[in-house]
Amino acid sequence: MPSNDPELHLLITAGPTHEPIDAVRYIGNRSSGRLGSALADEAVRRGWRVTLLLGPAAILPERPEVDVVRFQSTADLEACLDEHLGACDALVMAAAVADYRPAQDEVDRGAKRRRTGEGLTLRLVATPDLLARCSANARPDQLLVGFALEPEDTMMDSARSKLARKGIDLVVANPLETMDSSTVRAVLIGNPERGVDVQQSTDGRITKADFAGWLLDQITPLVRNRARSERTHGQA
Amino acid sequence: MPSNDPELHLLITAGPTHEPIDAVRYIGNRSSGRLGSALADEAVRRGWRVTLLLGPAAILPERPEVDVVRFQSTADLEACLDEHLGACDALVMAAAVADYRPAQDEVDRGAKRRRTGEGLTLRLVATPDLLARCSANARPDQLLVGFALEPEDTMMDSARSKLARKGIDLVVANPLETMDSSTVRAVLIGNPERGVDVQQSTDGRITKADFAGWLLDQITPLVRNRARSERTHGQA
Repeated sequence: MPSNDPELHLLITAGPTHEPIDAVRYIGNRSSGRLGSALADEAVRRGWRVTLLLGPAAILPERPEVDVVRFQSTADLEACLDEHLGACDALVMAAAVADYRPAQDEVDRGAKRRRTGEGLTLRLVATPDLLARCSANARPDQLLVGFALEPEDTMMDSARSKLARKGIDLVVANPLETMDSSTVRAVLIGNPERGVDVQQSTDGRITKADFAGWLLDQITPLVRNRARSERTHGQA
Repeated sequence: MPSNDPELHLLITAGPTHEPIDAVRYIGNRSSGRLGSALADEAVRRGWRVTLLLGPAAILPERPEVDVVRFQSTADLEACLDEHLGACDALVMAAAVADYRPAQDEVDRGAKRRRTGEGLTLRLVATPDLLARCSANARPDQLLVGFALEPEDTMMDSARSKLARKGIDLVVANPLETMDSSTVRAVLIGNPERGVDVQQSTDGRITKADFAGWLLDQITPLVRNRARSERTHGQA
């Protein structure tokens, strides 16, 4: 009964993070935000409601219906997720979040470090694990999808280990070369412990727009099932 | 005799540098490249020949006549300068070059560092001092202009010290807030030891396009004098 099928709400994170070292310098990564923006556009085209949490990337979604919220650092993104997670049916974490940021007492946002002849040691600390945090905070009816960008030879092992470690529903495994590229080759792997028994590969390298359609084809039935069973369960 | 006045060639550096930490991560800075691109466009409009060495910035010059050469890291820019310095009449170093980069043995371009629960120490080493290098390699007829981005209260002192330390002709002093902003407030200071006795301020905050015109107004007579006196001297 499609008329009883409520509008689905997709929350997407995309782009890099910038972790400040001082007033002008930061640690960044080469994520373009293109994949997350393509996914937001395609989901809007399919009638989803979409919120895109977007880092400091030059690429923006084309569709004005996408609700774009900007972030800079991993800490900013953490606050955005705490605010927006509750409202979504599915979360796709496509942002390339920094694993490390400069230790708080080394950051001087008001000044600029001077060059000296000698070297410098930058003390880094681990950033909060946002995927694990979302997994802990999410409701059972919400579908959580992560990304694993890994060197080709260890990609599948790393992706499966990520699924188990973070307790999310699905992971999209990408070879490392996908980053900042216009095409993508991916394997979508489900987490059997969360009742998701899926393994699907893209047909070789495809554009990020085609990947967006492919990924939505895969996850839409899963999202609908989750939302529906939860509603049934809630009524029982 | 304008008909005997040869076309002047301006070499500009602009944008940030990205110093690789691993295959995906880097140390960057918030330079937009907007000021250097505006300067390149305005110089072309005035009949200069222009080569723009441009870092990983999203902004490009509008005029197709600008010869754009891209770089990523400080080491790349050093190689570009070694190649292009000899051909120019004036060099304007507007790029926001990293003062530090990860030590060579800490960089792993083929892999991605793993997150661990613990912290991480990143050993940084000083990048080559490109302004001092250009000053050592330049001919006496070439005019060298640097930038000093400094906190307001120490800006003038830092700028004068930079002039003396690097042995360049002129420095443009900017308050730190100028970075990644659409407007600029600047003081141009000459190096008396190099026979350049100038101190001029912009009329408050002006757009980067207006700043480009203002800076070219200031340096054009100096560049012509240098080139001319050197030719006279060479003929004597």
